[in-house]
Amino acid sequence: MTRHEFQLHFIYALGKHSLDGMVNLGILGGGQLARMLALTAAPLGIKPHVLSEFAEDPAAQVTSYWRRGNPHEASAVREFAKNLDFLTFESEFIDASVLKEALSGLNVRTFPNLDSLERLQDRKSQKDLLKSCRIPTSPFVEVSTAADLQAAFELFHGQFVLKLRKNGYDGKGTFFCSSERNLDELSALLKKYPQGFIAEAIVAFKSENALMLFRNAEGEVVTFPMVETHQTNNRCDWVLGPTTHPRLKVLIAKLKKMMVSLNYVGALGVELFLTDKDLLVNELAPRVHNSGHFSQNAMSRDQFTLHLLCGVGAQLETPTPLAKAFGMVNLLGTHTAPPVLAMSTNSALHWYGKFENRPGRKMGHLNGLGVTRAEVLKILLRERKKFNL
Amino acid sequence: MTRHEFQLHFIYALGKHSLDGMVNLGILGGGQLARMLALTAAPLGIKPHVLSEFAEDPAAQVTSYWRRGNPHEASAVREFAKNLDFLTFESEFIDASVLKEALSGLNVRTFPNLDSLERLQDRKSQKDLLKSCRIPTSPFVEVSTAADLQAAFELFHGQFVLKLRKNGYDGKGTFFCSSERNLDELSALLKKYPQGFIAEAIVAFKSENALMLFRNAEGEVVTFPMVETHQTNNRCDWVLGPTTHPRLKVLIAKLKKMMVSLNYVGALGVELFLTDKDLLVNELAPRVHNSGHFSQNAMSRDQFTLHLLCGVGAQLETPTPLAKAFGMVNLLGTHTAPPVLAMSTNSALHWYGKFENRPGRKMGHLNGLGVTRAEVLKILLRERKKFNL
Repeated sequence: MTRHEFQLHFIYALGKHSLDGMVNLGILGGGQLARMLALTAAPLGIKPHVLSEFAEDPAAQVTSYWRRGNPHEASAVREFAKNLDFLTFESEFIDASVLKEALSGLNVRTFPNLDSLERLQDRKSQKDLLKSCRIPTSPFVEVSTAADLQAAFELFHGQFVLKLRKNGYDGKGTFFCSSERNLDELSALLKKYPQGFIAEAIVAFKSENALMLFRNAEGEVVTFPMVETHQTNNRCDWVLGPTTHPRLKVLIAKLKKMMVSLNYVGALGVELFLTDKDLLVNELAPRVHNSGHFSQNAMSRDQFTLHLLCGVGAQLETPTPLAKAFGMVNLLGTHTAPPVLAMSTNSALHWYGKFENRPGRKMGHLNGLGVTRAEVLKILLRERKKFNL
Repeated sequence: MTRHEFQLHFIYALGKHSLDGMVNLGILGGGQLARMLALTAAPLGIKPHVLSEFAEDPAAQVTSYWRRGNPHEASAVREFAKNLDFLTFESEFIDASVLKEALSGLNVRTFPNLDSLERLQDRKSQKDLLKSCRIPTSPFVEVSTAADLQAAFELFHGQFVLKLRKNGYDGKGTFFCSSERNLDELSALLKKYPQGFIAEAIVAFKSENALMLFRNAEGEVVTFPMVETHQTNNRCDWVLGPTTHPRLKVLIAKLKKMMVSLNYVGALGVELFLTDKDLLVNELAPRVHNSGHFSQNAMSRDQFTLHLLCGVGAQLETPTPLAKAFGMVNLLGTHTAPPVLAMSTNSALHWYGKFENRPGRKMGHLNGLGVTRAEVLKILLRERKKFNL
């Protein structure tokens, strides 16, 4: 389909646009990613409809098109989606089969498509996909039974990580095995989580990196520079860029092919392990991603805009960096003073408006620019201290 | 007051902040300026409460803290402002005396202050202020009676412009006199508009320019580069920058002194005439301004952020340009297709979400960057054509 045909499809065939010329986009979920999508949608002439459970949710605060409901419930999603032109989601944990049922027969375009969501929301099928696309990733086996666990133990010489097939994030659903005495605990987990696990080799990485790709329905793909990501307590702490790697170009080419095979539309987050020899894909996330927040201040187009442009069939362009080096630090909860008063020069504040401020919770982030990555990190870590008032 | 004291005042004395640490800002009015203020407030951890008459208003769409009411009515404003920390406005046409009555006894900080609003919302007292601060401006006289009109005719040798003292904008409330036969028509206006007029000399300008200043409660002032503005049918058509002038520095110094005398806090828009010899101030607007929209994509801090940072007592910083040349074109109504599909590379869309799309109405704007102003203008005018689908 050419862009022109694609646009005509939405302008004239769907014909559901508001009288005011704006398109109606649904966002499933009310967290910070949904909030930033909604804030970005408005200036683009896209009405952001948000489905979430609480009126105090971060995304619920920034639109008058909020509707109360559970995005995991087919009936709520169906009612929500009836008059929408497009639908997207902030989390890959909404069961694709629930969404397929909910949207069946409705003329709403979901991006990324639900087959892609289905493939990527299960770590087992995600790993199979990577393998079939010859994309480097750590060795893995499926683990559903005690016998599988024993086999994994032998295969990986007693050193591996067990990951829940579904719904794991920020270290939740991830369990390490480093000796035989762990096996009993891990066996108990198999009963607790019937959805099953995969066991992966533990990768001796030099750094964790990340990459964002954006693909529209015409097949155009643009990417951000690769960044280094730093986790503390399994949670993203900071991101710095740009970084590169001799194998990056080949990797991107393979990821693009994979996107073609999925007919993928929208943002794709790619978490990477950089080892001595290679760039391994750790995980794929079919959505905007914490590691791409830097783009709000460091790129000519941010990840939220690009995701939306892909989804609604607008023209894409290659995003360019606005500084030689850039970064982001997450603001993890605890302070109580007004965040705007803690913000100072050299950084840009992105506050999520969460009602409950718990220690360690992602409450916002700071973006910064500079000439070198070391300089940016120094500035951002210094600025972040001011938030603990 | 030092910044620290100022902050303490709001954090500990006011003590009205939400439990979630965010400050509560009221915005009077629901148009595009209020919309962009609200969209900018959210990431700063500022909850934007909007008072406007219709749920479809541009600003009402982008916050869950909208309240229906007429910002010109004291009772509506008072009810709205009761639980707010700060209050600002998108238009200088709300009568300052109405606001003073509405806010009397409430512990809400209005920025800019109401005395400044009062001085600037009346062209006569605004002109008197400019004069008393020795800021160059065109000669003027007050016109309330037919005798005043005759006197103006003689003073300006039959060539002058009559401007309503209050509520004039985009050429509305402005009437030209170029010969004796205009006098009868103008006399009739005196009866129609009892608030009165001023008569100004017609300035033979080389270009119209504009400037933004931002002052916080501590007295720090930052400015944007001066820009050239181009009006078509009395409405801002495009803006290009940066531009400069030998007298700019002196003018800024005088404007800063004027802000001190007003104890002014927030954004101040300054419309200028560039003549052969001088920079004359045409009008002052005590608010964010159409001529400052370029900053959303061209400056390290945009005008909405800076206005808010000034108002809530956060740290200011000198905004720096992100490109050698930059510009903005207004999107004046008529097209009907989704605006997001018309946006393309080299420009950033800011759509206002107005329900009614009338020919000539400001529906949104495009910002663009480049190496020269001529290049930027060429790009933006080309891009704008795509919106007439």
